Amino acid sequence: MTPETIGLLVHAQAGLGVLHRLTGVIAEHQGDILSVEILENSSHDARIYFEIALPSPVAELERDLRALAIVKSLEAVKSFQRIYGKRIIIIGGGAQVGQVAIGAISEADRHNIRGEHISVDTIPLVGEQSLADAVRAVARLPRAKALVLAGSLMGGEIEQAVREVRQSGLLVISLNMAGSVPDAADLVVTDPVRLKRRVF
Amino acid sequence: MTPETIGLLVHAQAGLGVLHRLTGVIAEHQGDILSVEILENSSHDARIYFEIALPSPVAELERDLRALAIVKSLEAVKSFQRIYGKRIIIIGGGAQVGQVAIGAISEADRHNIRGEHISVDTIPLVGEQSLADAVRAVARLPRAKALVLAGSLMGGEIEQAVREVRQSGLLVISLNMAGSVPDAADLVVTDPVRLKRRVF
Repeated sequence: MTPETIGLLVHAQAGLGVLHRLTGVIAEHQGDILSVEILENSSHDARIYFEIALPSPVAELERDLRALAIVKSLEAVKSFQRIYGKRIIIIGGGAQVGQVAIGAISEADRHNIRGEHISVDTIPLVGEQSLADAVRAVARLPRAKALVLAGSLMGGEIEQAVREVRQSGLLVISLNMAGSVPDAADLVVTDPVRLKRRVF
Repeated sequence: MTPETIGLLVHAQAGLGVLHRLTGVIAEHQGDILSVEILENSSHDARIYFEIALPSPVAELERDLRALAIVKSLEAVKSFQRIYGKRIIIIGGGAQVGQVAIGAISEADRHNIRGEHISVDTIPLVGEQSLADAVRAVARLPRAKALVLAGSLMGGEIEQAVREVRQSGLLVISLNMAGSVPDAADLVVTDPVRLKRRVF
């Protein structure tokens, strides 16, 4: 049986070790967990979302999860990958991020109309350390495929962060700007609305 | 000892049950897992990121995780919440999403300059079912605080999805448009760049 990718939303009682119990049952069914999100973790309720490549029948996994005393309910849903697809991340000064976003959203629109799924996610930030932290964290974001740095001056610690995330396989595009970040990027673009051909 | 929120990046050997083993150790240390991301899950490597409220010393948890044969390395990092903060999600037609994004990014910029962390995430999409799926999935996205629907006609299944996600506590704003979605939203705005005061 070829593994099927399923999305499961589990509503459970709150408490320590909930994730440990649930993943134990999934492992017993040879389920390979591709993605997990903790949606709610309050004093009384926990809601956890799993994407699982499952070689065994879904109904059996669902039955054994429901059998856990901590599980209140269970729902099969569509996966994030199917809905939001790959992510282009834009970070930098507000004005430049806005202009780059307009171009990227318009190009993503043309792809998505033909059935693709591309998201454009942004955060306007200033300050060398904040920007360096945000760049490094992109390597930990799920489904991130390219990072665009939009600003008028970036260097120092940000340049170092760019070199690090490129090593993890992320494509990094920089607007043409002052500072050493353009030297560290995979690609430098001049017109903020013109990056579409290289990113998509 | 008041729980401290820590970010941990774990590099482990690939295989079934990795998450189960790691979460077992975290539960032994009374760690409350607030967030988890599977960053890599290839045939030979797994990289998993945890955010944990930990009442016990971090060094002891790190020591016991490192003691697992499947763990290759471990790194303490800053949490997503501290870096990207809360998320405004914009969904709809490409042209409208772009215009709303410009306004939202500019306003997020003004907040972030003063030390806040607000992200603006978008996906241009068409089609009733695709849009309804995307709206429903926002309720499963981590750190999503508000959803903006930007288009010229939305109704039917999308309206139903809007009513569902509002029940989970999400703020839903709709551009003024044809169809029944504006009736279902928390708030309707007319000028796409003018939603800032109500969302931020």
